[in-house]
Amino acid sequence: MLVIGELINGMFRDVAKAIQNREVDIIQHLAEEQVNAGADALDINTGPYSKDPKADMKWLVESIQKATNVSLCLDSTRADVIEEGLKAVKSRAIINSTSADVEKMETIFALVKKHKAQVIGIAMDKSGVPNDKAKRIELASRIVAKAMDFGIASEDLFLDPILFPVNVGQEQEKEILESIREFRQLCTPAPNTLVGLSNISQGTNTRSLLNRTFLTMAVANGLTAAILDPLDKELMNALITAELILNKNIYCDSFLEAYRKR
Amino acid sequence: MLVIGELINGMFRDVAKAIQNREVDIIQHLAEEQVNAGADALDINTGPYSKDPKADMKWLVESIQKATNVSLCLDSTRADVIEEGLKAVKSRAIINSTSADVEKMETIFALVKKHKAQVIGIAMDKSGVPNDKAKRIELASRIVAKAMDFGIASEDLFLDPILFPVNVGQEQEKEILESIREFRQLCTPAPNTLVGLSNISQGTNTRSLLNRTFLTMAVANGLTAAILDPLDKELMNALITAELILNKNIYCDSFLEAYRKR
Repeated sequence: MLVIGELINGMFRDVAKAIQNREVDIIQHLAEEQVNAGADALDINTGPYSKDPKADMKWLVESIQKATNVSLCLDSTRADVIEEGLKAVKSRAIINSTSADVEKMETIFALVKKHKAQVIGIAMDKSGVPNDKAKRIELASRIVAKAMDFGIASEDLFLDPILFPVNVGQEQEKEILESIREFRQLCTPAPNTLVGLSNISQGTNTRSLLNRTFLTMAVANGLTAAILDPLDKELMNALITAELILNKNIYCDSFLEAYRKR
Repeated sequence: MLVIGELINGMFRDVAKAIQNREVDIIQHLAEEQVNAGADALDINTGPYSKDPKADMKWLVESIQKATNVSLCLDSTRADVIEEGLKAVKSRAIINSTSADVEKMETIFALVKKHKAQVIGIAMDKSGVPNDKAKRIELASRIVAKAMDFGIASEDLFLDPILFPVNVGQEQEKEILESIREFRQLCTPAPNTLVGLSNISQGTNTRSLLNRTFLTMAVANGLTAAILDPLDKELMNALITAELILNKNIYCDSFLEAYRKR
């Protein structure tokens, strides 16, 4: 399971401020904290308040790479902002993200190939977010097919069924869990599957419980990656235990500590 | 999801003592506590220390029925002890359990028919506990077929894949989760599926975390019943949330409290 830390995101006011004021210590601390808590990669998003997202992305990538060498997940709706990040990245990056729209896929997949990156493909298009499993699978299939056209290996693709908050689209969650299971069947080797976990609990007052319960269910359905808050210790405990149950780590009495000391 | 409380079991020393001394208050309190915490049914087992399991079973059933009217799950390896319970039960009982052995099934299914009971069928036989999914499905299929011979409705059958403790048979857990999913496909209407949850964490020092994580994964795979400790609040919270995610309860901000007040 690839754990991608979500906390370096300019939508959080304190992060936005640190970006604006070029407070490198704050950003590096946030990077180290997440990695120490179990993040295998870090999502980087300049956020909605950025006045110069390209410059901010470049600065973030450079600052974070001085503190840690985990993979970076470059998160922007703008391809030029992602490209600025890709130019600065030393190791292999994950591009976050493309939709299933042809133009968007062509732009993003060209970047994937040029920079030998991995990429998140979200099962939505211009017509919006799908309302059922069939539509999610159709959109994911389009992404897989186009990625194949570009010669992108299926293991380098992370298919995201796109989460609904449970207080908005509760009836969607079962469809989403089943989509994760079916995405894994779309091609061989199986593509990765990913969720932006915190969406599930948006606007609720039981965020951690909803997050860790959904994550556990998604892991049971074959989820292989998630963007989440690794500082939520109960969430990470649930994840480590779910992977233990699936025999991905070896049981020992101190399996939680053993995982964290990897 | 049918929650069957596990605490009235003579394998616990204080319960064994209460049974031996006919301390009705202790047993009734244990019944009420479990029902108040969300148990839909109560497992009753006279335990290994019982000198007269038939008399103890009768006394337990009568005592508990004075305190609560939930279903009772009569748990014994001896058919005569189960029958003693069945004679005393006022509402519909669940028989816990039969294996896939022909003689055992014939004895137990005759009781099921005679007393209009429901029944737990465990995917094991005289040769022991199965080591893979295929064997579990073969044994479960035998139970389903024999139940059909007896005219038992599939909804009255609870198929148990039989849990391994994670520190003993870790590589079995994934097979067990998949078995739960496949048991549901064995016939139409789908049979119920059940686990004796606490087995998963036997001998470990992270019991509650292992229990609730496995339960959440099992619910994601179609589990419809479990014998568990309903007084474990975090376990019940995980279960309520997993069922919410599957759209079985309606979301509201206080969904945990709302479920408990049903």
